[in-house]
Amino acid sequence: MKKLINRPQDVVQDALAGVALAHGDRLKVHTAPDYIVRADAPLRGKVAIVSGGGSGHEPLHGGFVGRGMLDAACPGQIFTSPTPDQVLAATRAVDGGAGVLLIVKNYTGDVMNFEMAADLARDEGIVVESVVIDDDVALQDGRHTAGRRGVGATVLAEKICGAAAERRRPLAEVAELCRKVNAGARSMGVALTSCTVPMVGKPTLELGPDEIEFGVGIHGEPGRERRPAASAHDIVAALATAIVDDLPFGRGDRVLAFVNGLGGTPLLELYVVYNELHTLLASRGIVIARNLVGSYMTALDMAGCSITLLRLDDELAALWDAPVVTTGLRWGA
Amino acid sequence: MKKLINRPQDVVQDALAGVALAHGDRLKVHTAPDYIVRADAPLRGKVAIVSGGGSGHEPLHGGFVGRGMLDAACPGQIFTSPTPDQVLAATRAVDGGAGVLLIVKNYTGDVMNFEMAADLARDEGIVVESVVIDDDVALQDGRHTAGRRGVGATVLAEKICGAAAERRRPLAEVAELCRKVNAGARSMGVALTSCTVPMVGKPTLELGPDEIEFGVGIHGEPGRERRPAASAHDIVAALATAIVDDLPFGRGDRVLAFVNGLGGTPLLELYVVYNELHTLLASRGIVIARNLVGSYMTALDMAGCSITLLRLDDELAALWDAPVVTTGLRWGA
Repeated sequence: MKKLINRPQDVVQDALAGVALAHGDRLKVHTAPDYIVRADAPLRGKVAIVSGGGSGHEPLHGGFVGRGMLDAACPGQIFTSPTPDQVLAATRAVDGGAGVLLIVKNYTGDVMNFEMAADLARDEGIVVESVVIDDDVALQDGRHTAGRRGVGATVLAEKICGAAAERRRPLAEVAELCRKVNAGARSMGVALTSCTVPMVGKPTLELGPDEIEFGVGIHGEPGRERRPAASAHDIVAALATAIVDDLPFGRGDRVLAFVNGLGGTPLLELYVVYNELHTLLASRGIVIARNLVGSYMTALDMAGCSITLLRLDDELAALWDAPVVTTGLRWGA
Repeated sequence: MKKLINRPQDVVQDALAGVALAHGDRLKVHTAPDYIVRADAPLRGKVAIVSGGGSGHEPLHGGFVGRGMLDAACPGQIFTSPTPDQVLAATRAVDGGAGVLLIVKNYTGDVMNFEMAADLARDEGIVVESVVIDDDVALQDGRHTAGRRGVGATVLAEKICGAAAERRRPLAEVAELCRKVNAGARSMGVALTSCTVPMVGKPTLELGPDEIEFGVGIHGEPGRERRPAASAHDIVAALATAIVDDLPFGRGDRVLAFVNGLGGTPLLELYVVYNELHTLLASRGIVIARNLVGSYMTALDMAGCSITLLRLDDELAALWDAPVVTTGLRWGA
């Protein structure tokens, strides 16, 4: 294992120290318990949004803290849920009196620990809503999950709900919007190589030189099936068909298409994937009205990509277009 | 070789098609000859800036076309210089009467082809200045280079000169600024793994499981030396010392620190590197006044990073902070 790290057990702490030094003008990094928070939090009267999960998926979630997206993110150790006290401390830190929305990816540890934190926060009088994201069509139940896994829709939900909160929409509406994004989004990924967890030191998934893992999870957990390597055209056809048929998306749908790199795949290839995806969707009468192409939800150094489609209406499109100022996603005034 | 591509010889065309589909609202992708241009080009009275080089370094250069940075980028085939007719066509397309600056990385093919294009453009009456970037301290002469190679300073020069051009500074001043950035910047990189060129199909550089290439080039060309794998602390110490001692940077200098991922390295590790760099520079009395952390100039799927330091004054800092609206770099109103 070759990585740009010091001691494997210190990776998350070392990286958080780097984040604090690089972005101290806009973010505060609290340690023990660890969370990243907007420097201007709490904002009075604004619904606050907190997310988090295991580290190793950067820029998710810490890179999405800022105006128009998250108020705080709780990074666990690599691929390990944050603890309830992290989530509770972050929730306290961002509550501005209008309540807090927790956006949780559907993994057993995350769901349990965020739930516990929500209960503790409610005991302290903080109004908390919690929404679980489960958009991965690959598997019904996974190694770490009851039900479907939460993947790319998380990024979209954080952006869209963040915009709604910025517009001072009330907690019930922001939570409802989060459920709407989750209900209208579907994802699936493919791994060309495994990731390697620093504390383990060897690849999570054994993939032969001509094998790919179809429907892989963001921790390198198995997907639907092992397949022979294939062209971008064929891989995209398989991923997109599984996604489109699941919701299903149909002729006349306007979608946000999110082509996400898993950490070890260069941007050049993601545009090859986007090109294939556009062509396939056009042939089915599905119009890409918005897009996001880049590595936003990664699995350490895994080569591969995921595709997420979100059905758009005017409300979701407008919230997507609203300004966002984070280190990982940034546009608008 | 597993990649998200179709036929290896089509990678660049397929990716450009994806860029055109994803960003057609802001960019125009011209083919045969290939160049990416601002949708609103040419801008009357504004100095235009054109760069380019081999593909495989994305988001460089096409991802930096837009307001406040480049007017056009000329992508060659993978790791292959663009042809003079590409550069000439792009130069014609963006000239708004105030002249055109060509920003060229110091590789033999690039220098020759951009020079030829500059001569042809001048024959047509376009005022052209050309600046060669050569900031890599690793080697004096390389496999593809007479003199030092052009690496990370290219991104900084494109951003800073783009801001100056946006402020309607005249061509001579924008070119002078480009030379100033190049003179005040130094870089060096390290590879943990090789990249694999699609048309070749096997790693460019043979690196053992515990070897790293110190001073690697952005095409996987050899660096200063092969070394045993080391901690981020030791790698950063070696890179930063080589950089700092070369200019030299000294106590009291304010710098822009650019930690760049080479394509296969996750963001998490780049923050570990940034943390080490900050600590080392602080111990030498060098202050990081601005930073950029991410994968902006890549070498396909190579794992590793490069560090660039640029000595800042108030002028450079203000131009760095100016708004930029590209797909690869974006901030400000």
